[in-house]
Amino acid sequence: MLVNKEWYYTLWEDPQEPDAIKIIDQRDLPHAFTIRTLSSVKDCFVAIQEMWVRGAPLIGVTAAYGAWFAAKEAQVGIDPPAMFTKMLDYLKQSRPTAVNLFYALDRVARAVENDFSEMATIALNEARAIRREEIEMSKAIGKHGVKLLRDLADKKQTKGPLNILTHCNAGWLACIDYGTATAPIYEAFQQGLDVHVWVDETRPRNQGASLTAWELGQMGVPHTLIADNTGGLLMQRGMVDAVLVGSDRTTANGDVANKIGTYLKALAAKDNQVPFYVALPTSSIDMHMHDGVTNMPIEERTADEVCCMSGVNDQGLVERIRIAPENTQAANYAFDVTPASLVTSLITEEGVCKANTKAIEALMSKKG
Amino acid sequence: MLVNKEWYYTLWEDPQEPDAIKIIDQRDLPHAFTIRTLSSVKDCFVAIQEMWVRGAPLIGVTAAYGAWFAAKEAQVGIDPPAMFTKMLDYLKQSRPTAVNLFYALDRVARAVENDFSEMATIALNEARAIRREEIEMSKAIGKHGVKLLRDLADKKQTKGPLNILTHCNAGWLACIDYGTATAPIYEAFQQGLDVHVWVDETRPRNQGASLTAWELGQMGVPHTLIADNTGGLLMQRGMVDAVLVGSDRTTANGDVANKIGTYLKALAAKDNQVPFYVALPTSSIDMHMHDGVTNMPIEERTADEVCCMSGVNDQGLVERIRIAPENTQAANYAFDVTPASLVTSLITEEGVCKANTKAIEALMSKKG
Repeated sequence: MLVNKEWYYTLWEDPQEPDAIKIIDQRDLPHAFTIRTLSSVKDCFVAIQEMWVRGAPLIGVTAAYGAWFAAKEAQVGIDPPAMFTKMLDYLKQSRPTAVNLFYALDRVARAVENDFSEMATIALNEARAIRREEIEMSKAIGKHGVKLLRDLADKKQTKGPLNILTHCNAGWLACIDYGTATAPIYEAFQQGLDVHVWVDETRPRNQGASLTAWELGQMGVPHTLIADNTGGLLMQRGMVDAVLVGSDRTTANGDVANKIGTYLKALAAKDNQVPFYVALPTSSIDMHMHDGVTNMPIEERTADEVCCMSGVNDQGLVERIRIAPENTQAANYAFDVTPASLVTSLITEEGVCKANTKAIEALMSKKG
Repeated sequence: MLVNKEWYYTLWEDPQEPDAIKIIDQRDLPHAFTIRTLSSVKDCFVAIQEMWVRGAPLIGVTAAYGAWFAAKEAQVGIDPPAMFTKMLDYLKQSRPTAVNLFYALDRVARAVENDFSEMATIALNEARAIRREEIEMSKAIGKHGVKLLRDLADKKQTKGPLNILTHCNAGWLACIDYGTATAPIYEAFQQGLDVHVWVDETRPRNQGASLTAWELGQMGVPHTLIADNTGGLLMQRGMVDAVLVGSDRTTANGDVANKIGTYLKALAAKDNQVPFYVALPTSSIDMHMHDGVTNMPIEERTADEVCCMSGVNDQGLVERIRIAPENTQAANYAFDVTPASLVTSLITEEGVCKANTKAIEALMSKKG
């Protein structure tokens, strides 16, 4: 996607540096655009752990390239297979709750185990394949989702753009390109549909204010930043035509785990007859869990994220400030679960389906 | 209420300085506790306009004392009645949307117009009466509301404290003492009930993080700060026993205008069978408006409040930072409207009533 009017991916190979990959250091966004070079297992570990890269698909691809570096480093050692396995175990520790991390590493490991003599080449090819598939996945979500947006635009009674509300960042920054929730929006925008995005700032980590607002701005998609509290009023007053969010994990019955606050927007959407769409790769559907509202484990993060905030001061320097009284106790749950009954449709790379067990099973069997 | 273990009101007369009043400069909270002296019409105008004082009841009382200063200043002039009226008109410009401001100024004006020769004494007595009534109002809300909390505590099936979620600051800082939404909580706490408060930070102005967390902390009431996104999850998981908020204006049919985001919490309360209480003085009930969801005017504020945030940095200095990309467009609606159907009960100084036209009319006629 566009950054400063040039095309970028979130992770790419640079022909000038064939032994490395390039990434965008997302910690600096939106205040600075920093490209970093990763050329070792350690580099990839740090990039994932310290959140230079974030978002499930991007973490997976970074890990896959980490496995390539592991293969290269192991190949010159005494016991390549053992060393390779050890390094993959190390990479798995970088973000132990990220499902895509394990998926990507296991997939490269399986590819390599047939032929350790060519392990570096095989690992690289597998990393490239995973990266390519992620891009295709986003594109397919965009293609399926844009039809829903076009339908809404056709049916819209009032003048003005199609207003889409999104929460958190399920954008291209979380993927390699296009994103998940943003993919139908970018597709619609590129097709010339008149769209406008309400961007929830997404406290406490502000992914909406710092990432979604930034990437939409770089692409030129009209958008307005709002406090997370605002969406209900906007829906009451007919100012939202659709809610479109991503998902960290969706259960077999269609319950959607996503960034904390998603559930509140889904309730408001239902109360105001606004369609609530969830865009997600089928790889994030957990066919083993059947009641997300009750059973989904919810990550708890540090209270500092609630009590403090980062940004740039008047001098353009990044600074961290405390907004609450000293020693205030805070709770920081990272996700909530939107019950399937509040979800209008799931938008996946395989197509659009209703959020219920039967429809999801049919979709997954189509995938094969 | 307690501040640094001493008792304070938000506004008081100091016998050492009989020609002035004292207030807490709330702009400095929670990072510093600053007391300021107001001794002129101009002082009161600035204190209201620049939000040294905020909250409808406190604005009203500050204005009433401003009218006292106006009477003193007018009394020594050539045409006291005309000068007095002119100064009240000036005070009305300090916060033109604050209903209590007009109410308080008009009330002092009516008291004075019977006897301009004693206008300063009469104005002071009227200001004192308004202040005393505000304290009584808060106390009465506390007394009526605590019964509801006691009932919930008695019925509670699980161990642990009674968990009350509140939004924004309808606390003693907005009033003279006790507050509105906080009055039943303080009363319960002082009666020895085991209470715990979930404090919504209340973006974009952070009144929860900076004011409610501070005043509960000073009083020793157990509380936990949360992002505004969190309440839905907490209610889904049975971690909230009641939601208790204030109101800026409630319509004749029971629709509740309150700080933006209140409506989303009300939806979650309904979805999870959590009682949703609104504490308010009957003076904030607008018997002329019958459909708040459609007709309530919603104040729009500057985008800067969404894009920027203030707090203390590592050096303990108050600093303002920008959290969004430069030149991001933001929308900042200050209030939303919770439909009466989502409100369990209204708690007023006259008693508790259902949020419907019949019950509200009965309550108001009781008031006479």
